[in-house]
Amino acid sequence: MGGKTLEPYQFEREQPKENEILIDVMYCGVCHSDVHQVANDWKNTIYPCVPGHEVVGRVISTGSAVTKFSAGDLVGVGCMIDSCQHCEPCHENEEQFCQGPHGQTMTYNGYWKPDPNFNTFGGYSENLVANEKFVMKIPESLEISAVAPILCAGVTTYSPLKYWGVTAGHTVGVAGIGGLGHMGVKIAKAMGAKVIAITTKDEKRNAALVLGADDVLISTDEKAMEAYADKIDFILVTIPEAFDVNDYIPLIKRRGALVTVGLLGPYDAPTNNMEVAKRCATVGGSMIGGTAETQEVLDFCAEHNILPDVEIIDIKDINDAFEKIKDEEVRFRYVIDMATLKNNPELAK
Amino acid sequence: MGGKTLEPYQFEREQPKENEILIDVMYCGVCHSDVHQVANDWKNTIYPCVPGHEVVGRVISTGSAVTKFSAGDLVGVGCMIDSCQHCEPCHENEEQFCQGPHGQTMTYNGYWKPDPNFNTFGGYSENLVANEKFVMKIPESLEISAVAPILCAGVTTYSPLKYWGVTAGHTVGVAGIGGLGHMGVKIAKAMGAKVIAITTKDEKRNAALVLGADDVLISTDEKAMEAYADKIDFILVTIPEAFDVNDYIPLIKRRGALVTVGLLGPYDAPTNNMEVAKRCATVGGSMIGGTAETQEVLDFCAEHNILPDVEIIDIKDINDAFEKIKDEEVRFRYVIDMATLKNNPELAK
Repeated sequence: MGGKTLEPYQFEREQPKENEILIDVMYCGVCHSDVHQVANDWKNTIYPCVPGHEVVGRVISTGSAVTKFSAGDLVGVGCMIDSCQHCEPCHENEEQFCQGPHGQTMTYNGYWKPDPNFNTFGGYSENLVANEKFVMKIPESLEISAVAPILCAGVTTYSPLKYWGVTAGHTVGVAGIGGLGHMGVKIAKAMGAKVIAITTKDEKRNAALVLGADDVLISTDEKAMEAYADKIDFILVTIPEAFDVNDYIPLIKRRGALVTVGLLGPYDAPTNNMEVAKRCATVGGSMIGGTAETQEVLDFCAEHNILPDVEIIDIKDINDAFEKIKDEEVRFRYVIDMATLKNNPELAK
Repeated sequence: MGGKTLEPYQFEREQPKENEILIDVMYCGVCHSDVHQVANDWKNTIYPCVPGHEVVGRVISTGSAVTKFSAGDLVGVGCMIDSCQHCEPCHENEEQFCQGPHGQTMTYNGYWKPDPNFNTFGGYSENLVANEKFVMKIPESLEISAVAPILCAGVTTYSPLKYWGVTAGHTVGVAGIGGLGHMGVKIAKAMGAKVIAITTKDEKRNAALVLGADDVLISTDEKAMEAYADKIDFILVTIPEAFDVNDYIPLIKRRGALVTVGLLGPYDAPTNNMEVAKRCATVGGSMIGGTAETQEVLDFCAEHNILPDVEIIDIKDINDAFEKIKDEEVRFRYVIDMATLKNNPELAK
């Protein structure tokens, strides 16, 4: 696959090394970052690009040193497939901060800084190879066709909610009710918080309430925004493009926090530190999560009966799906049934 | 006093109400915010403006309900003289966040939102009246002529260092080595941190080392900045004017924080959330501190033998002092000996 439209691409995976696992991919979530990456929005895409970092499947075979898994196990892989495993963050299972010479290896577009020819291909494919530390156990109680988005959207929202200490009694705002945001609403609710869904789109109101939000705040409604001034302990912003963070800072309660997880670039305007300082507030950012948190959010979702709201699609509809994601038409995550790749004679290798 | 140059101004204080204390002002620190306020940099100055919120003196008389103090006690007053005392922040001794109808009453330029005619006059004067909750005990072991800046510069730097959990083993950067920054260096050092003074000015290197900094980082030296990339747990930025926060974010260690206390307005450029998110970092702000923290920092300084580095000045030199503060010529805080007001026949009322 190359350029800005996905098309069939044939390649051979390397056989799993001693600590690696070969996985038969059954379902793969379609993340907004897949759209960004294919479009080269971050100016770092290596083509051909095979996206996919919300991968669920069963173990085909394991390297000789693998102890955690055996053939047939139901497993998942998120945004990373490997890391140096020698640095402090890796020892703490926070491999997203890997300080090894190559950094962590991303599941796709996983270039290594010193080697411009190295690349990885993700889960929009028949199979995948990952180091066993990056392979998660999928609780059997979770519906297999819906679980994939927990591997990225789940951990990306769970990690900051947990790290910044969201708990019962807190009011949590979730801005941007899409793939990430809808998981943020469900997880924050399960943590015991009162959840306010914040969106520009009045037509998402009912959907947000169905997700479990206690209230819906339309961010273009000045009066409604004013009524929530200084009232929200923690705001998780999942808006996937540049926005003006100053629009949301007045909502933060004293000593509260706003954490942006969707935007990987500059805000639209300089932050006004007057509004931040007078609340003694945090304006933070967060990106995915490590292996420990990824397993944790899977177990958390199993415990609290949380599943992403998904629409299952055929691999042949992937380019349409990308367009609908850009237009915010998905409710709330597409998941590719990878059997549609394997069973399609035109696409199968 | 009015306009942008200070001049003598005569007024009568109201007599202390039952919970208030009348204080004979002996020393008053000259804060950078006095310069901003007199120049109306924040577009909220009410003239005539009598600055001064780092006040040390002795109790002259107390209202009938005052229990904490009696005449002759050595006391201090910081940035606030009163608050509603009924809201949640006030009950938690965090009166800087007062949610009462008027908010907290600032020591000077303390306008109340609903009453544009109300104003307060600060410590560049013979005496001051404050609610007893806002009057601090000054430990007798602290040198009386140098202690005043702890009431603002001390608590403004102590509060975020404490709140964000700075402790032994941390590396702390202090950016901006002036009135606030020099206290930040001393306090962070006393908390057990390794302290890196960050400044644009190579000529401040020796002074920073004398203050106790373990290293000095010149922020215009790209190589030196790169060598500290991802190495600083907590950066306290005391730069008193707009700057580009993106210059400092790469220094933050994973899950670390940068907190700006000097700038009460917008940064120079939009924050790049890519750099924040990949560190799971906090970019926060903080403003002064409450009564509990103000007493705490005074006691902390007494325990650790910390005193601000001050130059004692005559009240008649205040306009020169303001110019020198703008030019960063002070090392590191001017304190007005208020006897020079009382003993000056031209100035005394």
